Amino acid sequence: MSDDPGGGTTVFIGLKPTMTYVFQVVTQLNSGSGPVVVKARGNAIGKAVDVVEVVRRRFLEGQVELGAIAIGTERLTNREGREANVSSISIPLTRTGPLPPAGTAVGPEPPASDPP
Amino acid sequence: MSDDPGGGTTVFIGLKPTMTYVFQVVTQLNSGSGPVVVKARGNAIGKAVDVVEVVRRRFLEGQVELGAIAIGTERLTNREGREANVSSISIPLTRTGPLPPAGTAVGPEPPASDPP
Repeated sequence: MSDDPGGGTTVFIGLKPTMTYVFQVVTQLNSGSGPVVVKARGNAIGKAVDVVEVVRRRFLEGQVELGAIAIGTERLTNREGREANVSSISIPLTRTGPLPPAGTAVGPEPPASDPP
Repeated sequence: MSDDPGGGTTVFIGLKPTMTYVFQVVTQLNSGSGPVVVKARGNAIGKAVDVVEVVRRRFLEGQVELGAIAIGTERLTNREGREANVSSISIPLTRTGPLPPAGTAVGPEPPASDPP
């Protein structure tokens, strides 16, 4: 995770489990610090799409807007010291609904509890 | 590959090598049959981005325009008969440059040959 000069945060998707990144993104969007850009390269591109889909369909349904998705190619030096092209993706998310009260636990909306 | 009712073609990315799909997409874009939508689900999402990047940066550089990339979630029944959510991506490509003469082989631009 890193700060973006234009306000907002970037979450880089790597080798951790999908839900680790889902919680990072939800926490950032709930903190009110602005848009979050989910970025990934190579093998992690599919996981980046999973993270965004879980955030917008399960955790923050109807409260988040997808920006223009960008794809690109980066030139990296691999472990053997050779240059290789690797694809990348960048998916911007903005919160549209009201922010939750500070200190609210991250999680999907709980079902309405039956009154006793 | 399948025809799209709105004109144009869809190329579904699966288990074949990346270059197989690159050639399919380039051939379709060169045939003049309209835009091509590259689609993939789950593990193939990263390969779909690779295919589009190779087409637009190596084979048809400056001759192809990326449309609005869409992501989504589909509900599939897996081999054990259970339902599972799987992420999907859809990347539209349009040819902007002039079409090559019919019968031109698919390939990157050859280097200018030295006159004898």
